[in-house]
Amino acid sequence: MHAISPAELEARLRLHCLPELGPRRFRRLLEAFGSASSALSAPAAAWRSLGLPGACAEPRRSAEIRQRAGHALGWLEQPGRHLLMWDDPAYPCLLGELPDAPPLLFVAGDPQALERPQLAMVGSRRASRPGLDSARAFARSLAGGGFVITSGLALGIDGAAHQGALEAGGITVAVLGTGLQCLYPQRHAGLAERIVEQGGALVSELPLDCPPQASNFPRRNRIISGLSLGVLVVEASPSSGSLITARLAAEQGREVYAIPGSIHHPGARGCHQLIREGATLVESIEDVLQALRGWQRVPPKGEEVAQDEHPLLLQLRAAPQTSEGLALACGMPIGEILAALTELEIDGRVACEAGFWIHRGP
Amino acid sequence: MHAISPAELEARLRLHCLPELGPRRFRRLLEAFGSASSALSAPAAAWRSLGLPGACAEPRRSAEIRQRAGHALGWLEQPGRHLLMWDDPAYPCLLGELPDAPPLLFVAGDPQALERPQLAMVGSRRASRPGLDSARAFARSLAGGGFVITSGLALGIDGAAHQGALEAGGITVAVLGTGLQCLYPQRHAGLAERIVEQGGALVSELPLDCPPQASNFPRRNRIISGLSLGVLVVEASPSSGSLITARLAAEQGREVYAIPGSIHHPGARGCHQLIREGATLVESIEDVLQALRGWQRVPPKGEEVAQDEHPLLLQLRAAPQTSEGLALACGMPIGEILAALTELEIDGRVACEAGFWIHRGP
Repeated sequence: MHAISPAELEARLRLHCLPELGPRRFRRLLEAFGSASSALSAPAAAWRSLGLPGACAEPRRSAEIRQRAGHALGWLEQPGRHLLMWDDPAYPCLLGELPDAPPLLFVAGDPQALERPQLAMVGSRRASRPGLDSARAFARSLAGGGFVITSGLALGIDGAAHQGALEAGGITVAVLGTGLQCLYPQRHAGLAERIVEQGGALVSELPLDCPPQASNFPRRNRIISGLSLGVLVVEASPSSGSLITARLAAEQGREVYAIPGSIHHPGARGCHQLIREGATLVESIEDVLQALRGWQRVPPKGEEVAQDEHPLLLQLRAAPQTSEGLALACGMPIGEILAALTELEIDGRVACEAGFWIHRGP
Repeated sequence: MHAISPAELEARLRLHCLPELGPRRFRRLLEAFGSASSALSAPAAAWRSLGLPGACAEPRRSAEIRQRAGHALGWLEQPGRHLLMWDDPAYPCLLGELPDAPPLLFVAGDPQALERPQLAMVGSRRASRPGLDSARAFARSLAGGGFVITSGLALGIDGAAHQGALEAGGITVAVLGTGLQCLYPQRHAGLAERIVEQGGALVSELPLDCPPQASNFPRRNRIISGLSLGVLVVEASPSSGSLITARLAAEQGREVYAIPGSIHHPGARGCHQLIREGATLVESIEDVLQALRGWQRVPPKGEEVAQDEHPLLLQLRAAPQTSEGLALACGMPIGEILAALTELEIDGRVACEAGFWIHRGP
């Protein structure tokens, strides 16, 4: 996948393990010395003359750094594991445009997933049930429409977005805020497996053994938006990290979309804030697609028969709802709604879970 | 209230009853002939030379027109009835700036209400319960804060806005799309009475006996927005007349505000459309007030103690809600919410009506 020598690969992995060596410094070293191998063999004074702190250069030939690089090489030898380099032709091109693009990306799964048009979906870790349902429904439709859904594998909206994409038989990419060998949260280990099995990928710029650290998550967010054509924020409180992702996305020139909600729902406030700041207000996937002209849309499976469907099924296909919500949405009396739902339930086409009606089958 | 002779007043009322004589033509006649009396005595050819159709001039001296003007004079002699002329110093100054400002305004109630800072509130006639509750709650707060609430006396959001203003002990203005003697809808006759009793006004540019005609309502909307500093759209379908009002308001240079809602609620779609077109997204009255700098805000009664209040009361003071809505809004388990509501209900501070909890007292 990359045309560099094994020695240079090992040198890059060693550079990558050095403390305080972020993407910009990594790139400065490569540009100054021509290769990672030369950078490693250069004297510390030469590093300092590039403005790099001593703590960066000092451990570069240490046994620990050698060992960690060796460990990464071992990891890469196993099937389905890849390393994408910033100067690699296979490196995702939108991400490569960022001034702080990761110099190395560890990938578990299919790296080609990263070359396809991606839409990021992010939101609150503590999302409401309707928020989670919206995330799943949008992800299903967008993935069914041919977009790769990119998110952060977090609890809440992230998980629901990955889930929705998988349900549509689509491809989804999870960008981790930890090393790929320190999957977090562990509760999503099964989800991560399914993401890979279904042709997607897990991605991290961090050393494989990097544990969860609060400071790494906001930095991870720039990769989520950097990989994507746009970022859809589904539900977020005003203090949510999703707002950081959305603002980064706007700075990166990406489209930002936000789903509004009731003014009585705190989880809608972050989205409302983004809309005030210029994000596109999104009611349906058409609103997302409209702003992404140039990407041909494939109709999601089954959408072509939607015209003949019962109006309740049309509503429930978009998102689970309460019976009151359905009455409001369909403009029908609640009695009629309940009667119709009962019939559809008997037919096995809908089901009720914790007060919400969900679409079961055709 | 106006410094014109009784004969000129009668002449203006006659002009005003002529068919096809809109505000611009009315003004053209006054400007060309110097007075309504001269315009009436001028030959039809002189009218035609001003570009006015024959149907305008023809009946100007007819018995019917004389009779209708006489009827209006009789109406005006009764207490609490007023006529504001476009060139009158008491004519509402924001409205007077419009190129198609009504030349005459019939007013029942206190015409000084029209001189105070007004905020228009409009929305769907077939509003949802939460929409109506929001309209009432916003109107209560804004009227309590010293704004006159101006709306169209229609069913739905209009009625709830007038109602909320009255509940706050505030002043509210209803602009009718019929003559003041043909109040429509009749179901709001009691509301109209209370508006007048509480220091507000009913206003119409139409002859007193003008019945409800579909074409008059969109024209009426320009007066609602023309009188106001801004227009708040509470709930509206994309085909709602409220969107016309909001767009007119934007053309008139007024602030336009819209309250977002769930993407599953059709009544939110018109508001979302307006937000996409540049309306200010509004979650609270602070969002409205922020955009109206220069108007000093008086804190609504009791707001200064809000800091110490139970979080549920804070929520319910903003708008009635279901227990599920409160659980979501306060981030508390439904069990705790129900226990707290029961206690507050026993204390007489909240009550439940048709599934919605409402704020009762301090």
